[in-house]
Amino acid sequence: MKIALDAMGGDFAPQAAVDGAVLAAQQLAGKAQIVLIGQEEAVRPLLTAHGAAAEGLTLVPASQIIEMGEHPAKAYQHKQDSSIAVGYRMLATREVEAFCSAGNTGAMLVGAMFSVKAVPGVLRPAIANFVPKLHGGTCIMLDVGANADCKPEMLEQFGELGSLYAQYVLGIERPKVGLMNLGEEEGKGTAATQAAHQLLKVNPHINFIGNIEGRDLFNEKADVIICDGFTGNVLLKMAESVYDALVDKNFRDPFFEQFNYESVGGSPILGVNGNAIIGHGVSTPKAICNMLLQGYQMATAGIADQIKATFKS
Amino acid sequence: MKIALDAMGGDFAPQAAVDGAVLAAQQLAGKAQIVLIGQEEAVRPLLTAHGAAAEGLTLVPASQIIEMGEHPAKAYQHKQDSSIAVGYRMLATREVEAFCSAGNTGAMLVGAMFSVKAVPGVLRPAIANFVPKLHGGTCIMLDVGANADCKPEMLEQFGELGSLYAQYVLGIERPKVGLMNLGEEEGKGTAATQAAHQLLKVNPHINFIGNIEGRDLFNEKADVIICDGFTGNVLLKMAESVYDALVDKNFRDPFFEQFNYESVGGSPILGVNGNAIIGHGVSTPKAICNMLLQGYQMATAGIADQIKATFKS
Repeated sequence: MKIALDAMGGDFAPQAAVDGAVLAAQQLAGKAQIVLIGQEEAVRPLLTAHGAAAEGLTLVPASQIIEMGEHPAKAYQHKQDSSIAVGYRMLATREVEAFCSAGNTGAMLVGAMFSVKAVPGVLRPAIANFVPKLHGGTCIMLDVGANADCKPEMLEQFGELGSLYAQYVLGIERPKVGLMNLGEEEGKGTAATQAAHQLLKVNPHINFIGNIEGRDLFNEKADVIICDGFTGNVLLKMAESVYDALVDKNFRDPFFEQFNYESVGGSPILGVNGNAIIGHGVSTPKAICNMLLQGYQMATAGIADQIKATFKS
Repeated sequence: MKIALDAMGGDFAPQAAVDGAVLAAQQLAGKAQIVLIGQEEAVRPLLTAHGAAAEGLTLVPASQIIEMGEHPAKAYQHKQDSSIAVGYRMLATREVEAFCSAGNTGAMLVGAMFSVKAVPGVLRPAIANFVPKLHGGTCIMLDVGANADCKPEMLEQFGELGSLYAQYVLGIERPKVGLMNLGEEEGKGTAATQAAHQLLKVNPHINFIGNIEGRDLFNEKADVIICDGFTGNVLLKMAESVYDALVDKNFRDPFFEQFNYESVGGSPILGVNGNAIIGHGVSTPKAICNMLLQGYQMATAGIADQIKATFKS
C-alpha cells in the first residue's frame, strides 16, 4: 500500500515534510510505503541527508508549487504539474491509497472536487476534524470549513459521513451522532438546524442522539458532531487559541495536548472518491508524521470506498 | 439610583440572590439602592437573617415565579405578578434604572420585548457577553443567543450596539469592531457575513476592522465581536466547558478565571428601552453581586438611553 505526501506543502516544506515522512516510514515499515511528491532538486538532497532512514521512500517529481496565498481554483487549473495536482492524479488512478498535504487548503479542496470528485449521492463533501474527550477518546466534527452555508440535507449527510468514519476508522460501534445547536430541545436553533434535526431523527443509517451544545464538546454525549462549516471553523480555531494560551502559561496536560494540531494529524475530506487529508499550514515533522499515519488508517479502513458503497445503496 | 434584582431567579434563589444583593449593597452604599423583587414570605426571613447588612435593601412583593423550565412567552403573559414581570414594569416606568435576573432567560428576553420594547430603529435586540483578552481587558461579543438566524442588517446593528456599549460602559474610545468569520478576506464566510461585511465597511458610526477568526477571540484585534446568536452561543458554552475542564485539572489562572461566568456578571440585553441583564442560571452570590455592579455601571452610563438617542438620529 502506498501513501502519498505533498513534499512542497506547508510553511516549513520541504524540510518538515521530508523529516515527517521519514518518521512515518519507520512506523509503517513493512505495512505501507510513503511516496513523496515534489521538486526533485529540492527534495532529493534532503532524502540523501537522512541516509539509510530514507531508503524506503519514493520520490515522484512535480515541477510546480501552489503557494499558500494563491487563488485555489486558478492555481489548481494552471499548475497541472504542481505537487497537489500530481498527488490527486495518483489518488484518482489508485497508484496511491491516500494523499496528504499541508499545503493550500483551498487547492486541496478544489483538487478533491475536480480530480477524484464527489461520491455520487453526496451533496457536498465536508472537511472533518477531531475533538478530544475529557474522559478519553476522540470524536469527529464536521464540517469545519468546506461549506459555510449548509442546507438541512447537507447537515444530515455530514452525520452519515461522520458516522461512517467513526465506525470504520475510529472503530466506534454505533457511533452517537449529535447536532451542534444552541439548545437541547428540538425546536431550537436556526431554520437549517431545526429542519436538519427532523431529517436526522428519522434517518435509519445513523444513531442520532439529538442536539448537543457548545458545553458538550468534550463530554461523552456524541462521537460525531454535526455542524455547518462556519461554526466548525470558528470552534476549531478557538480551540487552537485556547491551546496556545495554555502553552503560553506553561500549562501542559494530556487532554489539552490533544488541542494541538500536531497530535491530531490532519483533516480528512469526506465524501470524495479517495482518501485525502489536509494538514495544518504550520505543520511540523511530528504533525506530518501523524497525518501520514492517519492516511494509512483511512486507507486500511477503505473509508472512501465504504462511503461510496453506502451512498450507492 | 435604584437597581432591581429578581430575588426568585436562578437555581439557588432566593438564598443566592439575597446574599448577592447584600454583597452588592455594601459596594454600592451611598451610590445606588438595591430593590429585591420576589415573594415576601420567602425573601423577608433571609433579609432578617442578614441583620444590619441588609438594612439598605428594599423588598417589592411579587407573588408568582416563572420557573426555569416554563415556556417563556406563555409564562410571561400568564404570570403578570411574577418577579420578572414586576421587574420589567418597574424598569418601564423608570422606578428602577436597571433590572437583573438569573431566572428564565427566555422570559427575560420576552419581557424585554413586550414590556420595555425594542428601541425604534433597532431591528432585533441582542444578548451580549464578554470575552477576556490575553493581555488584559475585555471585549464584548454579540449576539450570543437571542437571534439564531441573522440578516446582514442585524449583524451590522450588533456592531453599532456593541460599539456603544464598549464606548460608554467599558470606556473604550473608538472601539475596534470585528466580524467573526472563517477567514480574514472579505469574500469569506456565509452569504450573511459576506453581505454584512460590505455594510459594516461603509458604516460611518463604527470603527470596523474587518473579519476576525476563532483564533482572534482572545487577542487585541477587536473590542467588539459581531456574530449571529447561534455562533455566539456555541462559542460561549464551549468557553464555559474549557473553564470547567481547567478547574477539574486544578489549573487556576487570572486569564482563564475570567471564563468563569461568576466573574463576568451577566449578559446585557442591548437595543431595548431599559438596562436589562440576564444572569447564569447557576449564579452564586458572587455572580449575583457582579451582575448588580454591572447593572449599576450600565445605569450610570445610561447605555439604553445612549442607544436610543443614537438610533433616533
